[in-house]
Amino acid sequence: MRQIKVGVIGFGTVGMGTVKALWNQKEEIEKELGVGIKVIKIVDKEWMMGRHMVVPPDIKSTDPAEVIDNPEIEIVVEAIGGIDPAFDYVSQALARGKTVITPNKELIAKKGRELFQIAAQNETEIFFEGAVGGGIPIIHTLKEQLLGDDIVEVIGIVNGTTNYILSEMSLRKKSFEEALEEAKKRGFAEPVPTNDIEGYDATYKIAILASLCFHGRVDVEEVYRGGITRILLDDIEYARELDYAIKLLAIARRLEEGIELRVEPVLLPFSHPLSSVYGVENAIYVRSRTRDLTFRGPGAGGDATGSAMVGDIIDAIRNIQFGARGRVGCTCMRDLVVVPVENLASQFCVRILALDVPGVLGKIASEFGHSGVSLSAVKQPISTPGKLTNIYFLTHRVQERNVQSAIDTIQKLEVVKDVYAIRVEDGQ
Amino acid sequence: MRQIKVGVIGFGTVGMGTVKALWNQKEEIEKELGVGIKVIKIVDKEWMMGRHMVVPPDIKSTDPAEVIDNPEIEIVVEAIGGIDPAFDYVSQALARGKTVITPNKELIAKKGRELFQIAAQNETEIFFEGAVGGGIPIIHTLKEQLLGDDIVEVIGIVNGTTNYILSEMSLRKKSFEEALEEAKKRGFAEPVPTNDIEGYDATYKIAILASLCFHGRVDVEEVYRGGITRILLDDIEYARELDYAIKLLAIARRLEEGIELRVEPVLLPFSHPLSSVYGVENAIYVRSRTRDLTFRGPGAGGDATGSAMVGDIIDAIRNIQFGARGRVGCTCMRDLVVVPVENLASQFCVRILALDVPGVLGKIASEFGHSGVSLSAVKQPISTPGKLTNIYFLTHRVQERNVQSAIDTIQKLEVVKDVYAIRVEDGQ
Repeated sequence: MRQIKVGVIGFGTVGMGTVKALWNQKEEIEKELGVGIKVIKIVDKEWMMGRHMVVPPDIKSTDPAEVIDNPEIEIVVEAIGGIDPAFDYVSQALARGKTVITPNKELIAKKGRELFQIAAQNETEIFFEGAVGGGIPIIHTLKEQLLGDDIVEVIGIVNGTTNYILSEMSLRKKSFEEALEEAKKRGFAEPVPTNDIEGYDATYKIAILASLCFHGRVDVEEVYRGGITRILLDDIEYARELDYAIKLLAIARRLEEGIELRVEPVLLPFSHPLSSVYGVENAIYVRSRTRDLTFRGPGAGGDATGSAMVGDIIDAIRNIQFGARGRVGCTCMRDLVVVPVENLASQFCVRILALDVPGVLGKIASEFGHSGVSLSAVKQPISTPGKLTNIYFLTHRVQERNVQSAIDTIQKLEVVKDVYAIRVEDGQ
Repeated sequence: MRQIKVGVIGFGTVGMGTVKALWNQKEEIEKELGVGIKVIKIVDKEWMMGRHMVVPPDIKSTDPAEVIDNPEIEIVVEAIGGIDPAFDYVSQALARGKTVITPNKELIAKKGRELFQIAAQNETEIFFEGAVGGGIPIIHTLKEQLLGDDIVEVIGIVNGTTNYILSEMSLRKKSFEEALEEAKKRGFAEPVPTNDIEGYDATYKIAILASLCFHGRVDVEEVYRGGITRILLDDIEYARELDYAIKLLAIARRLEEGIELRVEPVLLPFSHPLSSVYGVENAIYVRSRTRDLTFRGPGAGGDATGSAMVGDIIDAIRNIQFGARGRVGCTCMRDLVVVPVENLASQFCVRILALDVPGVLGKIASEFGHSGVSLSAVKQPISTPGKLTNIYFLTHRVQERNVQSAIDTIQKLEVVKDVYAIRVEDGQ
């Protein structure tokens, strides 16, 4: 029986999850594929005591070259994350004709174009199923079963940290700060959570999804980005009254003029399949001209992402067996134009913190009118005269730039202390 | 540019949907794959006027041999359904080395073993993404990305007709008969709806899913089957009070002793991701040791299923291009043992139509006790003395055979006119 040899660089959560899944299912997979699979080298910066996994000493290493330069290794798992030095390791492995499996969203989003080229030049390939949605098999599905679909939009809950925080606020009436603390305590948020709560993580993922859905490339920098730090429990309660959830969504949509591309908290109707996805779970909704599909599953975690990586390894092995490396190459041939958010039309929910003094509502409402923004709903809770209160305005469908102009003038009103606008996602 | 020639046998809803999807997306797919794709022959029994699609006269035929025996045709789409004559056409096409794409669930469920063998012997392949869940890309996902997963259970809402009827009952308080009429009117149910409402259709699909998930084969006849014709609106209301939906589920689960395999209406907790799938939509839930995944989408319809077929055509073409036909062959190597339902343990919801006379509840409850069935909840609505009334009993977790024995004796009580039991699906 032919032996396929695998090398692993990076032995954190996902690296371990991958090796664990591979070892647990080794016999079954070998039987199905008719080849032997052997992990012959695992590289990590430092091999500390107290890992949860026992690794035979002879396959441990601290030197990536022992994987990259080993001619026996046909498949390299990169699980260190980030660009530097992952990019160097991955590009070197590809240049030596090895197949690379990586869950590295930042690497694929920022350096995908280059890496796909290196892979093609060396008649090999790079798989990244774990890069978006962790254990959800979305990448292969888009590159294969949905390649022929005329996709109109892809919307994802692709960040478990923010979905957990918003779920805690919504289901357990916590404040943002309380929910963030809970997330940290449970290991769902990093000690410095900026990358998640400010939406950066999701921008990598939507850049990858948009590239696959629309067969082109977008730069991560072109993704409009908003975080969830300003969301109040009151916002969630008001949204609920209107039959909306508040979710941090990553959205890519094909418009006449180009691609709409953004990550931000939005009001999402309860009738939308993504509205009922709670906690750290991820989900991706794809709408094409012929079908609406929703994929739900674990967005992170070593075991789930490890299984996605093993799925990639199986795919890689089948291609090696059949001499079909590069069978599914880069499917992103076009350059995509991203439409500036100012040009988008939406409904908005605008929260205005204002002094409860006579005439305040009239002043604010007039400014909306002056900017051509008409209002669909207004809610001012019972407040104390002379004190600050949050007033909510739901606009009709208007251009972003009109709302922005209204907000600019409203912010200058003396009675107004703060303005915050959230887009309503109605799928139009 | 190489030309791949396609022949289509059967030009009903799905045949048309496939050709339409292929023609609509032709340029994009050809660009991505670097080959030309041409439908050179479409066979149908009779070419009536008034079809919604214009087909050039020179590619119309009524003779399947014009596809099967045409050496130019590399890919055959079978879209006539049923076993006879589909089995002959498909096996002949495979025997001539052609790739076959079929959405024919009955054919795959009953003749899959044979067809996979013929395909392997002739170094070709058969794809059937459209056979389960219509437009939901579940088959490829199970054969590829999830092949390495240690799958514990697969649960599907795989019949749109029954899900529509139960949704109408639940959401619009219709009776079964009213909901069935509405389904017929809307084209969601056949004039003779037995195949759907008695659960036969779903048995084909769960047989296919079980085979893929557990890497073995099961006979369709081994699937325990119950339909939805006896479900009352009252049952749905009672279930709701207990926080359950009633859904016709197709379930395959790995137990110590073998595979649990059944199609029947069950009480499903509202917390389960399948409980919120309404209308004709389908969904499939897969739980492995490392991940829970839910796939939702259109379970039928020519356009959606046609897109799934086009996904298969793309896969087939890639394999042809790379000389990798048979790259993903039959993944079902084991023979699976199906556990008889009598041996399964569940909670049950038992509806008993009884006369409201003194002592009736005591008599019934005693019989449950005699059979070793303990009760978790009981509901007797306010009724009229001497009249018939439905009493609901929710049991604790018991073996099916104990409940059956209780029902057998209860049915013999003079005060009891009817007994109906529904299993509670708690994922254990």
